[in-house]
Amino acid sequence: MSWWTQACRAPDAHVEQAALARQQQLTKPAGSLGQLETLAVQLAALQRREQPAVARLAIVVFAADHGIAARGVSAFPQAVTQQMIANFVGGGAAISVLARALAARLEVVDVGSLNTGAVPAGVVDARVAAGTADFSCAAAMSRGQLEQALDAGRAAVERAGHVDLFIAGDMGIANTSAATALACALLNALPQTLVGPGTGLDAAGVGHKAAVIAEALALHAAHLRSPEAVLARLGGFEIAAIAGSYIACAQAGIPVLVDGFIASSAALCAVHLNPAVRPWLIFAHRSAEPGHARILAALDAEPLIDLGLRLGEASGAAVAVPLLRLACALHNQMATFASAGVDGKGAC
Amino acid sequence: MSWWTQACRAPDAHVEQAALARQQQLTKPAGSLGQLETLAVQLAALQRREQPAVARLAIVVFAADHGIAARGVSAFPQAVTQQMIANFVGGGAAISVLARALAARLEVVDVGSLNTGAVPAGVVDARVAAGTADFSCAAAMSRGQLEQALDAGRAAVERAGHVDLFIAGDMGIANTSAATALACALLNALPQTLVGPGTGLDAAGVGHKAAVIAEALALHAAHLRSPEAVLARLGGFEIAAIAGSYIACAQAGIPVLVDGFIASSAALCAVHLNPAVRPWLIFAHRSAEPGHARILAALDAEPLIDLGLRLGEASGAAVAVPLLRLACALHNQMATFASAGVDGKGAC
Repeated sequence: MSWWTQACRAPDAHVEQAALARQQQLTKPAGSLGQLETLAVQLAALQRREQPAVARLAIVVFAADHGIAARGVSAFPQAVTQQMIANFVGGGAAISVLARALAARLEVVDVGSLNTGAVPAGVVDARVAAGTADFSCAAAMSRGQLEQALDAGRAAVERAGHVDLFIAGDMGIANTSAATALACALLNALPQTLVGPGTGLDAAGVGHKAAVIAEALALHAAHLRSPEAVLARLGGFEIAAIAGSYIACAQAGIPVLVDGFIASSAALCAVHLNPAVRPWLIFAHRSAEPGHARILAALDAEPLIDLGLRLGEASGAAVAVPLLRLACALHNQMATFASAGVDGKGAC
Repeated sequence: MSWWTQACRAPDAHVEQAALARQQQLTKPAGSLGQLETLAVQLAALQRREQPAVARLAIVVFAADHGIAARGVSAFPQAVTQQMIANFVGGGAAISVLARALAARLEVVDVGSLNTGAVPAGVVDARVAAGTADFSCAAAMSRGQLEQALDAGRAAVERAGHVDLFIAGDMGIANTSAATALACALLNALPQTLVGPGTGLDAAGVGHKAAVIAEALALHAAHLRSPEAVLARLGGFEIAAIAGSYIACAQAGIPVLVDGFIASSAALCAVHLNPAVRPWLIFAHRSAEPGHARILAALDAEPLIDLGLRLGEASGAAVAVPLLRLACALHNQMATFASAGVDGKGAC
């Protein structure tokens, strides 16, 4: 039995009921804080405490390269994966700025970029290989490499230690092609219904990308018999690592805030590998990448924000963190009708 | 010429262009931060500086009572206005918690509650009268009272001083009836298309509320010839004060973050009183109150969040503040392609 299929923790139903009851006593019309109420109650149940918190926060960006980039499916050159890894630790990337603003720990993990030299200072070296194989002509990775990548995700959660919330991000030129292929395989959807511009393809580029993915899906069709096979044949090292990190969080009892399209494709893989992961996933945002809506619907997910973000690297999840923090503050600190001497509904 | 029709400042088009150009150089695919990019650019233009900020933040809650409450249009008793004023300054209300979490200054202004005694310690006394008249049988307020309420809004902006952002909130049992009547008059809409449950009316209660508002609109129909007349006959002291505060902000060059249904009805009044106010208004959220969508559409507003909030008291605007702050941090602190040595799009 592989570690990723082992039991996850369950949310605490008693704490959930107590948190729900508390919400009804706070000085506001019942339900008037909308999703912030359900969010606080959900966090309470996951964190097993009536007063939830998002103080200790880990953000891990997993980076890797993709053989499929050779097929011209991205608007940016493949060297950008490496350059952005340096930018993450250099402090200039969006997620670097956001992590500072949120006082969050940011870890950058190279799970398999094309770089075969030393990793930059500050980067965790968990390289499985120098990029995946081009999945339009071969399996993206072997079963052994898949295990290594899943393990890299679990190891990052172990390094994060006792945190209130875990966020994973992605970096990898061409990874929307891998994510789209994974979603097509797991949701039995056609590439042209899920594919999108990624970092900025034009319409012709999107059409070409859909054709490449369709070709790849046809090549692997007979072998996509398990979520492990799907992930190994069509995935990426960083996507597998993110899936592994989500499963490890669910097993350790750590709530996860899921980022956009790539992270959600990893979430879809994680839930297929181990369905008990699902309650631990809070979805941060609805990406502008068109396939995201389909994955969210399949996971019955209602994201918190919809701001047209499509950057990845955990940026959308980071942007949503203050909503979780404010939901907790409201839940924990508001007065009750009784303590504030405020009449409840119908007291007139 | 009344002060509220006098000129507003104009956003700075040069700074806007510079901020736009900066966004194109940051290490991300162009447009990939969606509304956070446009928000940063908009704040830069309004604040007239290429590096916008939302550090100094004023939140003012205007509270008042409404004669229309006598018609049974609210799920809560009218005494709650007074009790919530005490809760605001006591620190237990949603906006009290949010203001603390955001390190914002919170001011509470009584513009005309039923309280005829001393105002609680910490509350600004700007009482126009002990509640408006019941607008289903008389004008809610006189022209003189309207001016006093508008002035109360302007005075709050003057007290706030040099802030980066101004937020106004509302408290007043039955004020969704006044806001609905205002929106119906200014948008030429039928009450049954705009009315909602407010703090929690059932379907029968909503029907009764629509009928009361329709009756009032018929009564005043011949006299609704100017935005001033509409606001005086159908409005509330806190709604007029909020409208006055928005106009004063636009005249002083202070960006406004607009809260939900009540605040947006005040924004609609402000824009009718002085159309040059519009560029200064950033809309925080889409309220669960059904009429809000109609007001937002009329103002061509795209709110930042949609979390099913319907509490008022500035809570929705406060919840959106971190999005503005993070938009500024990203705009100001991200590396450029050149500074980080990252290849731009099409460099392959």
